[in-house]
Amino acid sequence: MNAGPRHLEDGRARPLSELAALVSGEVLGEPSTPIVGVSGLEQAKAGQLSFFGNQKYKKQLAASAASAVLVPRDCPPSERGVAFVRVDNPHLAFARIAQEFAPRRVFAAGVAAGAHVHSSASIAGTATVQAGATICAGAHVGARSVIGPGCYVGARARIGDDTVLIANVSVLDDCLVGERCLLHSGVVIGSDGFGFAFDPSIPAHVKIPQTGIARVEDDVEIGANSCVDRATTGETVIGRGTKIDNLVQVGHNCVVGPLSILCAQVGLAGSTELGMGVVLGGQVGVAGHLRIGDLAKVGAQAGVMSEVGDGEIVNGSPQMDAKDYMRAAAVFRRLPELNRTMRDLQRRLDALEQESKKP
Amino acid sequence: MNAGPRHLEDGRARPLSELAALVSGEVLGEPSTPIVGVSGLEQAKAGQLSFFGNQKYKKQLAASAASAVLVPRDCPPSERGVAFVRVDNPHLAFARIAQEFAPRRVFAAGVAAGAHVHSSASIAGTATVQAGATICAGAHVGARSVIGPGCYVGARARIGDDTVLIANVSVLDDCLVGERCLLHSGVVIGSDGFGFAFDPSIPAHVKIPQTGIARVEDDVEIGANSCVDRATTGETVIGRGTKIDNLVQVGHNCVVGPLSILCAQVGLAGSTELGMGVVLGGQVGVAGHLRIGDLAKVGAQAGVMSEVGDGEIVNGSPQMDAKDYMRAAAVFRRLPELNRTMRDLQRRLDALEQESKKP
Amino acid sequence: MNAGPRHLEDGRARPLSELAALVSGEVLGEPSTPIVGVSGLEQAKAGQLSFFGNQKYKKQLAASAASAVLVPRDCPPSERGVAFVRVDNPHLAFARIAQEFAPRRVFAAGVAAGAHVHSSASIAGTATVQAGATICAGAHVGARSVIGPGCYVGARARIGDDTVLIANVSVLDDCLVGERCLLHSGVVIGSDGFGFAFDPSIPAHVKIPQTGIARVEDDVEIGANSCVDRATTGETVIGRGTKIDNLVQVGHNCVVGPLSILCAQVGLAGSTELGMGVVLGGQVGVAGHLRIGDLAKVGAQAGVMSEVGDGEIVNGSPQMDAKDYMRAAAVFRRLPELNRTMRDLQRRLDALEQESKKP
Repeated sequence: MNAGPRHLEDGRARPLSELAALVSGEVLGEPSTPIVGVSGLEQAKAGQLSFFGNQKYKKQLAASAASAVLVPRDCPPSERGVAFVRVDNPHLAFARIAQEFAPRRVFAAGVAAGAHVHSSASIAGTATVQAGATICAGAHVGARSVIGPGCYVGARARIGDDTVLIANVSVLDDCLVGERCLLHSGVVIGSDGFGFAFDPSIPAHVKIPQTGIARVEDDVEIGANSCVDRATTGETVIGRGTKIDNLVQVGHNCVVGPLSILCAQVGLAGSTELGMGVVLGGQVGVAGHLRIGDLAKVGAQAGVMSEVGDGEIVNGSPQMDAKDYMRAAAVFRRLPELNRTMRDLQRRLDALEQESKKP
Repeated sequence: MNAGPRHLEDGRARPLSELAALVSGEVLGEPSTPIVGVSGLEQAKAGQLSFFGNQKYKKQLAASAASAVLVPRDCPPSERGVAFVRVDNPHLAFARIAQEFAPRRVFAAGVAAGAHVHSSASIAGTATVQAGATICAGAHVGARSVIGPGCYVGARARIGDDTVLIANVSVLDDCLVGERCLLHSGVVIGSDGFGFAFDPSIPAHVKIPQTGIARVEDDVEIGANSCVDRATTGETVIGRGTKIDNLVQVGHNCVVGPLSILCAQVGLAGSTELGMGVVLGGQVGVAGHLRIGDLAKVGAQAGVMSEVGDGEIVNGSPQMDAKDYMRAAAVFRRLPELNRTMRDLQRRLDALEQESKKP
Repeated sequence: MNAGPRHLEDGRARPLSELAALVSGEVLGEPSTPIVGVSGLEQAKAGQLSFFGNQKYKKQLAASAASAVLVPRDCPPSERGVAFVRVDNPHLAFARIAQEFAPRRVFAAGVAAGAHVHSSASIAGTATVQAGATICAGAHVGARSVIGPGCYVGARARIGDDTVLIANVSVLDDCLVGERCLLHSGVVIGSDGFGFAFDPSIPAHVKIPQTGIARVEDDVEIGANSCVDRATTGETVIGRGTKIDNLVQVGHNCVVGPLSILCAQVGLAGSTELGMGVVLGGQVGVAGHLRIGDLAKVGAQAGVMSEVGDGEIVNGSPQMDAKDYMRAAAVFRRLPELNRTMRDLQRRLDALEQESKKP
């Protein structure tokens, strides 16, 4: 059970100049300003550092109580005398500095008394297996990894180094999770793919055995209660550095990423391939057996029913170019009016035609 | 392990007059009618009390085997001699009386042998911690609360009095759950918010540490496998008396409720605020950083992409006034016909123009 | 903890003729061809059997390394000399043969040391209860069934023979699961239905006690993290042979199946009835208190707001005939153009009318 303190402000004040140096920032204002933590512009208190990356938050910048703010390179100095730090990418710089202040969760290495570990499992000496976790025969848990309470690591499954399974996570038989991954509570890796063939003579949906695996590459984060099915044969793959939000479904034999972003409640049917750096908005659904190209972006709730090319930005269901979609959606709102106009035109045309038929 | 009987009809017959008094009802019929339980009009058997609150269930009322029925104040007496109880709100009165008959689940106070409780956790003497639950350092469990099997209460997390976590629930480090809450199986409170900044120089999605908490206020119910992310900094809040159905996603820094209703599979992106008494239908998606006003209602599957005012009723994706949406959707169905009509008009107009150009 | 090997190719080569006989197939080629496993056309290696059931995979057939392929009855022999097996339904035949090669997971019968079983629970002698599972008072686990790690079987719940609960599954008080069922990790059976009546005098959403049960009939499979709510009174039913994918929500008092297919992330509101052999695509939402008839099919992401008749094929939200929907969706894409054409017609008509008014 982890017991480390979890406070953004850990008491250790650091001079602004030291933090600015971490992100190659140029300080406008007092370099020795003591910073004790980070926060958003609106929530920030004195002593905290915030960031300003989008002109639409100008008001929040003007009103913020933050003692220092990360700003774009071309930002003029604060009129109120707040210390600014000019950087290339304020959001990214904020992430870096926030990591400096984030609490380190410290876990005692070793297998807790209440954990259930098979004698043939291999657990790194520096790994932590918490009470109530189950590690099956032939499974492996890497160095400094943490298997939280109620987690299940199936037979012959492998968890790489520096990976954390928070609580009640299932990594099923033979599945592979890479290094530096973070699997949130309730994640399921390697549930059976959804494959049946209908036999009318019984009648029954006959199960197609799902004998492949799911493989999660390095640096992947998967949100709470998300599911990655194992492949029918072969592998379902979540590529390196891909980040998946909560309640997402990845069907069997999908290949996702690397570096893709799947927002909450996305669903991918089977055998679909997502390229590098793809972004799927919340609740997007993607049909099976198709490809979404590198760097493509799909708007929230869209339904992808066919191929999406590299770099395309789409929306709607079935999906289309995102700008075209916004235009079509704008007309959709006015359909009743359009319909009335049409009937009016029809009447006027009828009248004109009558007119023109007159001798 | 809970072992109390769970029967709607607990054998203890109660006279109808006694039940009617609980809901300020006026009995039409025999006040001493013995009632042994409650049920819907269609499932009800003799001895049971049901309710009739909507004219569209007239047929079910006429055919019901119930011995007594809660009806609106203006309802005429039964033609079949069934006992009626006139009340202001039959549905609400039914809820009250059903609670009288509902089984009380009785839990033995104390920490079960197979539970894993850190020595620094504070567990009320009247609380129950079931086998397989894990309570971390510095956590608190309030009076009469129940932590079910496989539940995880993180470090310094606090569970208020009279709250029940059914099974395999995760309340993560530092998160707060109020009094009289009910968290169903698989709920996750305090998973990390989904926040990353892209660093093209690596390339990688750099994690923005999620160091805030999630706070669930009093009298909240959260459905199975729903997720409430912790805030980046500050708090994600589920307000007092809000009810959330299964498989719902609440993003980081959202503030929901009080007294709101989120139906199954709703998804809220980050930093969105829901007012008081908001109702979101099933599978609704809401974009981030916007506000849905008090008493607003959003139709099932709608996509809310911008502010919704107090009391507004919206539908569609992007959302619009619900009535306008129904009208637009009705025209959508006829779009092919509209399109044909348009082409027809075009041809007729071409002909007329040709005509008018003739000398 | 299960420790059986999980390899599709188990080393036991079998002659093609023997496998063909299992599916009444006609071998075109060498009947003694040794087969060591099965795979899809693209992933297959020498020694494996694959299937070809859809003309759109002709290229994959031509390029496959499989040593044998199940093909339709009318398929000509391979030009490359690959052994073909003619069958009535290649997909179904593949399922049958894949089952021959699928690993049998072998579980040691008995209750593991770390399991929590109430003294009044009845566990078949041939059943397996794994470490960290909890079986409550009066519950029953049938012959050869497996209750995986972290699973919770509530008071008086019954799990039929030959049923497997993978891990962290909750089957709550009084609920019933049939024979030969497979419940994947995180499934919740019998969470409370979502029923409240609003009392403005408090104000509060007053809970309507959910005192019914959920009943899962024989041969049902339910995907990871899916939820089936218990009935308010009476039963929520998943009918015999129905297959449910991951993250699906079934509301209280629904009656589903038999032999229906619910793809991932489907949501059913309360009291809805699905007939026999219904197919719901991914992310479909269905409103409450309505019926979807036998053999009806609903397209992915559709929203069913009213009755669907037997055998109907629908799509869209609100749903309509699927072909009509595809036509309407095609016009939707061109709405901006339609709108421009309309305005153009309007202008031309204005001009003509002006013209005709001239003396």
